[in-house]
Amino acid sequence: RIDSARLWDSLMEMAQIGPGVAGGNNRQTLTDEDAAGRALFQGWCEGAGMVMGVDTMGNMFATRAGTDADALPVYMGSHLDTQPTGGKYDGVLGVLGALEVVRSLNDAGVQTRHPIVVTNWTNEEGTRFAPAMLASGVFAGMHSQDYAYGRVDAAGKRFGDELARIGWVGSEAVGARKMHAMIELHIEQGPILEAEGRQIGVVTHGQGLWWLQITLTGKDAHTGSTPMGMRVNAGLGMARITEAVHRIAMSHQPGAVGAVGHVDMYPNSRNVIPGRVVFTVDIRTPDLAKLDAMKAEVERAAHAVGVELGLGVEIEDVGHFDPVTFDAGLVDVVRSAAKRLGYSHMDIISGAGHDACWINRLAPTVMIMCPCVGGLSHNEAEEISPEWAAAGTDVMLHAVMDVAGV
Amino acid sequence: RIDSARLWDSLMEMAQIGPGVAGGNNRQTLTDEDAAGRALFQGWCEGAGMVMGVDTMGNMFATRAGTDADALPVYMGSHLDTQPTGGKYDGVLGVLGALEVVRSLNDAGVQTRHPIVVTNWTNEEGTRFAPAMLASGVFAGMHSQDYAYGRVDAAGKRFGDELARIGWVGSEAVGARKMHAMIELHIEQGPILEAEGRQIGVVTHGQGLWWLQITLTGKDAHTGSTPMGMRVNAGLGMARITEAVHRIAMSHQPGAVGAVGHVDMYPNSRNVIPGRVVFTVDIRTPDLAKLDAMKAEVERAAHAVGVELGLGVEIEDVGHFDPVTFDAGLVDVVRSAAKRLGYSHMDIISGAGHDACWINRLAPTVMIMCPCVGGLSHNEAEEISPEWAAAGTDVMLHAVMDVAGV
Ligand SMILES: NC(=O)NCCC(=O)O
Ligand SMILES: NC(=O)NCCC(=O)O
Repeated sequence: RIDSARLWDSLMEMAQIGPGVAGGNNRQTLTDEDAAGRALFQGWCEGAGMVMGVDTMGNMFATRAGTDADALPVYMGSHLDTQPTGGKYDGVLGVLGALEVVRSLNDAGVQTRHPIVVTNWTNEEGTRFAPAMLASGVFAGMHSQDYAYGRVDAAGKRFGDELARIGWVGSEAVGARKMHAMIELHIEQGPILEAEGRQIGVVTHGQGLWWLQITLTGKDAHTGSTPMGMRVNAGLGMARITEAVHRIAMSHQPGAVGAVGHVDMYPNSRNVIPGRVVFTVDIRTPDLAKLDAMKAEVERAAHAVGVELGLGVEIEDVGHFDPVTFDAGLVDVVRSAAKRLGYSHMDIISGAGHDACWINRLAPTVMIMCPCVGGLSHNEAEEISPEWAAAGTDVMLHAVMDVAGV
Repeated sequence: RIDSARLWDSLMEMAQIGPGVAGGNNRQTLTDEDAAGRALFQGWCEGAGMVMGVDTMGNMFATRAGTDADALPVYMGSHLDTQPTGGKYDGVLGVLGALEVVRSLNDAGVQTRHPIVVTNWTNEEGTRFAPAMLASGVFAGMHSQDYAYGRVDAAGKRFGDELARIGWVGSEAVGARKMHAMIELHIEQGPILEAEGRQIGVVTHGQGLWWLQITLTGKDAHTGSTPMGMRVNAGLGMARITEAVHRIAMSHQPGAVGAVGHVDMYPNSRNVIPGRVVFTVDIRTPDLAKLDAMKAEVERAAHAVGVELGLGVEIEDVGHFDPVTFDAGLVDVVRSAAKRLGYSHMDIISGAGHDACWINRLAPTVMIMCPCVGGLSHNEAEEISPEWAAAGTDVMLHAVMDVAGV
């Protein structure tokens, strides 16, 4: 079993970097805080005897050698970047849990046949630079590096420039590494495990997702002196499409979700009818046919609102992945480890996207989930217990020993 | 008649200060640009032989002496501050038209019995610091100066601090001045005069208004992994209330308007269900009973949405005035001046709020309106013709000579 206190200490120390405003974290990707978190992690990895490699997307790979020089490495890891008002565990548990697995193997003097690599993937969250899982997506060949470097944040800053600015452009070519397998531990970010009273989620599938960015163009005009019949109100259009996204998600129950998360209105003045609104749509379901139907319905609804109100409507695809089926053999490995360790467990579908969803296209991949209080994530109040963290990490330790061979 | 070319030149020179991004202006109240506009105006007033007084709200009063030392002054003027994406004429025409009246009287060597004062009222727009017509409101005793100084902008800056920062806290006590009458020239900011083919609007009434600021509190949570039934989505609440404001305004036709102009969502992240939204409502009508009914309906709708979605709902009143009836005698003066000068004219109700609406409580007050292209205002594309500007200013010249006595 891993050292639960040491794991918790590391989680709490990392959470000192980029504190939020309400007990959580704001350590968004490619900020100075992200750089500080990376440096702390690198020091820990080197302290545990690992060798750090960094690729040109800033992905970090800390390697513990195996006994077989020809064997491909087994990867573990997740991400250290957070939401603007994020929790202390989303992503971080997967990275520092993987580090704890190596520390525990060191303590026990256990050598594995395959090398083990602890990974921190760049820009998993996708808030600052859409889409999410950007760097694991480039690693998996889903996006070109040029595309990734050219992504801009709301302030107009480019991903490539910001990666260089914080000093984390590595020398390795992205995706050059080959993998024997990849295991990602993550908090559930939903309410199911806690409600069912299980310590471990064995992740069999992941939901698919579409992210859209919609720009409505109307005409900004005086709210007081422009008669109702002469308005071209982009804000009203945004409201109607927000309602439509909700209605479409509700009509595909069970197993579908959707919401508008980001809204920028122009000129955003109390006595001006909004002339332009840019906003984002996030829709998901584990069912591929449903996913594409939902996307088409949202697009149809947006264009219908445009016609109704006389608005220009532009829809841009800014993120997408199909539903994922994780490797059946590795799913069995995780389930057996949980059983062997005596942890209560259940099969589960990931509601969130994860780096594992992209890496699954390259190598056998699986995820392990642990509960979080009230299912709350992407919120500074996100919470887990030290016991939950330890159980998930114990399962990862046993799964890695199984896959990497002792 | 006034000097149309000189008036137009002054309008164009003022528009150089705080240029917008699309041909209009961004000279918001208490910014460095506002300070520069004030300095230019002061120089012009002094060049025309007037003496400048400034009160503790930054209101500017340039006086041209009359022949009767005991006669109260006749005031003209409006405001030089603009919307963030505002036009070159909204407010500015009323100030520089008043200056042109004085310049024309100087050219013609005409003395008036009553002194004449050209006024620039601080923070008419109310975008940066709600409510609108803040400084004329303090002048009229509708707000205390402490209330005004304590108003904060979206960046958390206080009105009082910003007024001091730009160096325009004057020494006069606000509201100490007594007035014989006040005349405000303004562009219509609506489509009626142009549609009816009239050069002059004789403003008999002004609409009443309620401004509300609504804060919805839900729970920010992960969009992908939070089931639809577990959400407390403040963004969806904002959308429903935006639709309700529109529906309520439509149900009170004719003669009612309403919209949501400003929306701030938190945390404003694509994959986070909005946990908090702060947004503004602007509703207006010339009918007092209707106005209060509309406000009650909006509040009822907002609370109903709160119950429906489980949201916390806070509603703050941030601006209000009752419908206004301008002075019947002065309305006749304006109508007669337009007739005498041969300008086509009609009676009209002001859709927007104006400083004249507050001053009307202190002294006989009237407004003169001129058309604007397509009724467009609070938009950088706001446009008027030099002929329209001249016609309105001619009518003001004649009305002032009538009221101030020659
Ligand atoms: N795990 C996680 O929150 N990833 C960000 C991408 C997503 O929204 O699913
Ligand atoms: N005239 C004008 O736009 N005033 C600002 C206050 C209002 O919105 O009516």
